[in-house]
Amino acid sequence: MTGTAFDVVGIGNAMVDVIAHADEQFLVAQQLTKGVMTLIDGPRAEAFYATMPPAVEISGGSGGNTMAGLASLGGRGAFIGKVNTDELGRVFAHDMRAAGVAFDVPPAVDGLPTGRCLIIVTPDAQRTMQTFLGAGAELQPEDVDAELVASAQVTYMEGYLWDPPGAKQAFLKAARAAHAAGRKVSISLSDPFCVERHRDEFLELVEHHVDILFANEHEVMSLYRTQNFDEALQHVRRKCDIAALTRSEKGAVVVAGNEIHVVDAEPVDEVIDTTGAGDLYAAGFLYGLTNGMPLATCGRIGAIAASEVISHYGARPEVALADLVKQKLG
Amino acid sequence: MTGTAFDVVGIGNAMVDVIAHADEQFLVAQQLTKGVMTLIDGPRAEAFYATMPPAVEISGGSGGNTMAGLASLGGRGAFIGKVNTDELGRVFAHDMRAAGVAFDVPPAVDGLPTGRCLIIVTPDAQRTMQTFLGAGAELQPEDVDAELVASAQVTYMEGYLWDPPGAKQAFLKAARAAHAAGRKVSISLSDPFCVERHRDEFLELVEHHVDILFANEHEVMSLYRTQNFDEALQHVRRKCDIAALTRSEKGAVVVAGNEIHVVDAEPVDEVIDTTGAGDLYAAGFLYGLTNGMPLATCGRIGAIAASEVISHYGARPEVALADLVKQKLG
Repeated sequence: MTGTAFDVVGIGNAMVDVIAHADEQFLVAQQLTKGVMTLIDGPRAEAFYATMPPAVEISGGSGGNTMAGLASLGGRGAFIGKVNTDELGRVFAHDMRAAGVAFDVPPAVDGLPTGRCLIIVTPDAQRTMQTFLGAGAELQPEDVDAELVASAQVTYMEGYLWDPPGAKQAFLKAARAAHAAGRKVSISLSDPFCVERHRDEFLELVEHHVDILFANEHEVMSLYRTQNFDEALQHVRRKCDIAALTRSEKGAVVVAGNEIHVVDAEPVDEVIDTTGAGDLYAAGFLYGLTNGMPLATCGRIGAIAASEVISHYGARPEVALADLVKQKLG
Repeated sequence: MTGTAFDVVGIGNAMVDVIAHADEQFLVAQQLTKGVMTLIDGPRAEAFYATMPPAVEISGGSGGNTMAGLASLGGRGAFIGKVNTDELGRVFAHDMRAAGVAFDVPPAVDGLPTGRCLIIVTPDAQRTMQTFLGAGAELQPEDVDAELVASAQVTYMEGYLWDPPGAKQAFLKAARAAHAAGRKVSISLSDPFCVERHRDEFLELVEHHVDILFANEHEVMSLYRTQNFDEALQHVRRKCDIAALTRSEKGAVVVAGNEIHVVDAEPVDEVIDTTGAGDLYAAGFLYGLTNGMPLATCGRIGAIAASEVISHYGARPEVALADLVKQKLG
């Protein structure tokens, strides 16, 4: 698959992360379930933001993080997502392009403001997220440039796109365009509650539209409603060409037909914030895959990229991942 | 494979464990490397025993533990190993038979005393072992009853047998007898240092004589001299019919051709003493296998049996494993 303009085109909810630290009692007082992503509306976002401790703003969004990671690894990426012309929208677009990712979807000039994800990081490095999709939810099929999709080896989409109805249609348009051009379609299941909301549609997607699946163990167990990881593994290996199943400190299992790899997590001195671990795993894996590397190596690069992002706050890399990978793979 | 007299015949170094608790400083003072099994001679055993804190004696030996576990699960087992007519030899034979395992190898009336394993358990539940093989090392091919071997579905042997030369010949005789009768041969690699001592012979064994391999991740990585678990997994899956690779709290990977299972460890409230974890895993796995269960279930029973034995001191089960498995598998 050479001769393409891009390795990966990512489609996702364009989003700025607003990150603050708080203890478990804050979560209890705010009636939040730790580790979960909840969708909220604009007024709730305003009200919750008022209760948050001092925070930092970092461009985020699951698919956006993956594309920033891919670029940091030296990959060629483009992003499709919707922002507003407001300040946060300009921040998002600046950060995406400054990372080296092509981003040419015109911003909305009216309608909802740019989406934001209000994140509380507890001392155990877990993140609890409340997402106001904002302009991101207004992504429509016409925002998907079929020629751009056809020019990338892999079209990668976050499962969160299944929440806003227009984005779902954009997703399906992109999948059809990718397959029509002989390209691969990849999805991340994003979150176990996202899987619960859309289980039947995700099952259909994985079986009929997805070539490369990313999921963590909770997501894949939710998808197939299994009691343990191994049962989910047996289901998924018959359903898509490649599945990369992440298991936090237990590493990941990569399965492609009869090829299977059990890849350890990359050791980290201290886990600071797990936000973006799955996004960066996907970045590393797809970088390896689109550069023709063996699946075991793709899994290692995914693990290395994830290990960097969980070693600091925020879901985008703080060092050049290309250098880190070179150093670790030797 | 029905109609056999036994599910499994185990061959191992007959051994009584002498277990004491001590802290890390004791290991340092005695120049011992934590977690490792060292072979010692009779005088060293006497001298070290004199330094040990108050201890308890429990029948042990890797293969003996596995057979006791199999019987506790309801399996039909026999054991081949050598004791002396001395007091510890009578203890070993009593405990084996009381557990429900056939044990009819005549004891040595002279020569070395019954073997013993002097075990220090540190507060982190690791065990450091010094083994005086004693009479166990005098196991000879003539102690292997070829008819007994032919009457069991699986002949299971501990890798530690490779240390005494006569036992190695006994092992090979048993493997030939098992295969001649259309039975399966299984081995546990026992210990990473045991693998280092005998790597070339173990590689030859695994490729040509072993149908069912048990190894922990350190042992299988030592066997194939790999830097990570996945590389070892790729080697071993082409070399024997079934490999069950244990990874402590990371669970186990069971591979049989294109069938592969990633089975979680069974949760335990507190790990007290890891002695016997691998032995009991093998017991559970072989119980499932010889009773026609799917490989994923064999792995779960292995994990359940291992979880019981690491929850207390000593390497033999303290409850009826058959009941525990029934309760856990539902």
